[in-house]
Amino acid sequence: MTDYLKENEKIDDLQRCGLKIIQNPGKFCFGMDAVLLSGFMKVKRNEPAIDLGTGTGIIPILLTAKTEGVSFTGLEIQKDMADMARRSVEMNGLLDKVKIVNGDIKEADKLFGKAAFGVVSCNPPYMAKGKGKANPEDAFSIARHEVLVTLEDVVRQASLLLRPLGRFYMVHRPLRLAEIFEMLNKYSLEPKRMKMVHPFIDSPANMVLIEAVKGGGKELITEKPIIVYKEKGVYTDEIHEVYGY
Amino acid sequence: MTDYLKENEKIDDLQRCGLKIIQNPGKFCFGMDAVLLSGFMKVKRNEPAIDLGTGTGIIPILLTAKTEGVSFTGLEIQKDMADMARRSVEMNGLLDKVKIVNGDIKEADKLFGKAAFGVVSCNPPYMAKGKGKANPEDAFSIARHEVLVTLEDVVRQASLLLRPLGRFYMVHRPLRLAEIFEMLNKYSLEPKRMKMVHPFIDSPANMVLIEAVKGGGKELITEKPIIVYKEKGVYTDEIHEVYGY
Repeated sequence: MTDYLKENEKIDDLQRCGLKIIQNPGKFCFGMDAVLLSGFMKVKRNEPAIDLGTGTGIIPILLTAKTEGVSFTGLEIQKDMADMARRSVEMNGLLDKVKIVNGDIKEADKLFGKAAFGVVSCNPPYMAKGKGKANPEDAFSIARHEVLVTLEDVVRQASLLLRPLGRFYMVHRPLRLAEIFEMLNKYSLEPKRMKMVHPFIDSPANMVLIEAVKGGGKELITEKPIIVYKEKGVYTDEIHEVYGY
Repeated sequence: MTDYLKENEKIDDLQRCGLKIIQNPGKFCFGMDAVLLSGFMKVKRNEPAIDLGTGTGIIPILLTAKTEGVSFTGLEIQKDMADMARRSVEMNGLLDKVKIVNGDIKEADKLFGKAAFGVVSCNPPYMAKGKGKANPEDAFSIARHEVLVTLEDVVRQASLLLRPLGRFYMVHRPLRLAEIFEMLNKYSLEPKRMKMVHPFIDSPANMVLIEAVKGGGKELITEKPIIVYKEKGVYTDEIHEVYGY
């Protein structure tokens, strides 16, 4: 296993179907948002799916186990991150199902062609451009701040990449929900399912999961919320289930 | 008390500060949505508030007890409904605080002048124009279907009636949330607080409470959801509290 590792990297067990993932704690490790997004998504056998800004490759790797999908692509702009994700795919014996591509989200329609996918997912940087300090060279900043890609870039590309009635899945901060809806509307992606994530039963939501359909009708289901903790430090059963342990 | 009543009308106890309300079960009685909206709203002493399409007058009447506000207006297009609301106001001894006006929401800016209010509220008809059967002569249809007023009419008027940084409160169906956000954005009302209402802890939301600020910044707090029933027929403590018994 350690043959797959480079300096400062480690292997984490995904607790699902024996899947493992390579991460570099000095760069950026996947968070609960990616795991919850993969649990919220649906991918059918005949739907090629792409994950925009895949990082460690966590979303396509989990989706091979959680959905019926057989054709996943992960697009990642950072060369070393894409290389690490590719090694995770290989280590899991998933080279026939998951392709990692090193490239820019903003060029995705040129890389893959328009309407090439049935499903697009993204766990984008949450912090709006110009908010907070960000370093465009640093993996943490790239993952958290809109230094290389904005919400609008992501939504525009999702719309270009999707077939008619294809589905776009995103996790984001509810603070930016109004802007998210505005962008989805601008690019003909109609929100159809939404799920709020509250850390505790009595706290405001800190994540929102959204499914939008390209050219879909106007009817949004707000599903029962996800509550993360029963009490401080103790996950709810629902979270244990999503994590698979 | 019964001096205030006309044919087929009855008096209901609001279980709060001795307030009562006149209703006509053959027309339209207020629902939980109005009560939850009044519990979600904030009105300060120096903020004149108007309720668009006030029906029985339930919202301004409850707000006299639930907030610090001292100047409320209820606008109602149906003459007999406005008359009934006015009698409820009188019966509660609130004529100095609540004014009921018989008129059309679509003309509100002309009736009251622009930027005349610090707070605007509305419990509008939920059903979009052209959906379901509706009779424009019937009080139930007027309350439930967009036969006399549309979502866009309500939001446009709210924006015209509000001072800069004034607050708009609305209860609606989450099914139409994307459209609601689109309209708020179109009329410079920025959503700042949102609360989902789920009938049970594990069911989709069937109401959404929204606070939007005229010309506000882009940051939306999704508060902890309201759960209505603990089990079938048994309200949660939260609902008992909102109802005041």
